[in-house]
Amino acid sequence: MQPRRLSILGVGLLGGSIGLAVRATSSSCRIIGYGHRKETLDRAVQMGAIDEPVTDAAAAVEGADLVILCTPVGLFADILSRIAPALKPGSIVTDVGSTKRSVVKLAEQRLPRGVHFVGSHPMAGSEKRGAEFARADLFKGATCIVTPTDATDAGAIEQVEAFWQLLGMRLIRLSPDEHDRLAAQVSHVPHAVAAALVAMQSDAALRLAGRGFLDATRIASGDGGLWRDILLDNQDHVRDGVRKLLGELEQLLERLEKKDGEAVRRWLDASAAQRERWVRQKLEEMNPD
Amino acid sequence: MQPRRLSILGVGLLGGSIGLAVRATSSSCRIIGYGHRKETLDRAVQMGAIDEPVTDAAAAVEGADLVILCTPVGLFADILSRIAPALKPGSIVTDVGSTKRSVVKLAEQRLPRGVHFVGSHPMAGSEKRGAEFARADLFKGATCIVTPTDATDAGAIEQVEAFWQLLGMRLIRLSPDEHDRLAAQVSHVPHAVAAALVAMQSDAALRLAGRGFLDATRIASGDGGLWRDILLDNQDHVRDGVRKLLGELEQLLERLEKKDGEAVRRWLDASAAQRERWVRQKLEEMNPD
Repeated sequence: MQPRRLSILGVGLLGGSIGLAVRATSSSCRIIGYGHRKETLDRAVQMGAIDEPVTDAAAAVEGADLVILCTPVGLFADILSRIAPALKPGSIVTDVGSTKRSVVKLAEQRLPRGVHFVGSHPMAGSEKRGAEFARADLFKGATCIVTPTDATDAGAIEQVEAFWQLLGMRLIRLSPDEHDRLAAQVSHVPHAVAAALVAMQSDAALRLAGRGFLDATRIASGDGGLWRDILLDNQDHVRDGVRKLLGELEQLLERLEKKDGEAVRRWLDASAAQRERWVRQKLEEMNPD
Repeated sequence: MQPRRLSILGVGLLGGSIGLAVRATSSSCRIIGYGHRKETLDRAVQMGAIDEPVTDAAAAVEGADLVILCTPVGLFADILSRIAPALKPGSIVTDVGSTKRSVVKLAEQRLPRGVHFVGSHPMAGSEKRGAEFARADLFKGATCIVTPTDATDAGAIEQVEAFWQLLGMRLIRLSPDEHDRLAAQVSHVPHAVAAALVAMQSDAALRLAGRGFLDATRIASGDGGLWRDILLDNQDHVRDGVRKLLGELEQLLERLEKKDGEAVRRWLDASAAQRERWVRQKLEEMNPD
């Protein structure tokens, strides 16, 4: 899908990068950027991420073929209500949120008939925040999960998928619930754990911390408001994922207690091997030649 | 301390890097390398990490002023027994192990009077293994913890500290127990957690994993045998550290359950701020200007 009029609601790292990436593939698309802070929008215009800055959400979507919600997940309800009356019939709305059940449900409740919503989660980003870190190649080679339901328009799914492909992404289709369950395990729980690993440290302990700790906790420097929304929104799956992690750690403690070095080693080796397999596969996906 | 004859027992990443670093600061020091595999030693000679390859531990320490144990922690008991009869009176023995209580105790039991042991833990390394990854600057700017006890010779402590300083390290003195407690929190528990984060994943979940997961679990690719030794040896402090982490996560789950977004956000923001403070401090230590 090559939209003629694209509306990006929230011009931060992801929204800004979408603008830059679209601009890199097409000069004919008009890109509207919505945000509540004028300076952010002006910077996005200067960077070439958007053509037109608009501080009213409804006005920002007028006439758009494709609207992408790029604000934190916690603002989706409000934004959807505000844009609903202004959306063009036949237009498509998607998002970049890290949780999918709630936004899909909200969209089905609040958007008018004739407007198609398709949930998306481009798995790209960084602990950095703001349009100043936006890059045209942020999405290249990354995975995008698209989460249609039985109610989703088939043509709209294809158009949204084609749009992300245009930005260089590989696609996976999942139900909103399956997405939220897997994302909790592989992203939301690791985030909570990284924050907990920092929170448990005394200053004396931090003096001893090195590169391993630096990498293991990098994601804990992410934006607190954004991650509060994600963790709250995906609370049940986050809880299940944390329980799974606790199970692994309890088992380790038992084996250590019993001085079962063989079992501890098998567990460590299996994790290292599984991680190495995954890293190799990721590299192959990104460099198919 | 500038040893004239240095014996490195175990020429892997750390042992090899010590050899390269000493060679970079001194041409007069004779460096003996011990290992049980001839090929590893030959490669270390070719790299310039050691001058003389020896496959007998006792022979490797003969006449040495300074002996450094660089094998996995689990082999220290055996190695100390084997080298004890061959150590020169007045010589100094140290190590690079990630746990300190057990090796200090072993050394006090097994080394003859007149030979001085000082426990060391240079906080440098990588998930990579083997002398082929050794680098002369591996220790530069990193922290080395030295763990003397009331029984440790004061002159020997100073000499060991001077040796690590020669390699560019910053020094911290801690008791062996204090070291093991803090290292569990900041290094051993994060390692266990990284392995658990990988172990809990299904293949379906891993398809969704991105850069955050890559960094958060990097240390899980470390050597299983080495880390089994560390976790077993430091079992009590690892258990306490894991309990501390579980406490943080249980508290998070409670707050999520109660939908206490304010408390969740405060916790996330506090972690992010603590981590950023720590990163800034580390950078200042490494670049004092």
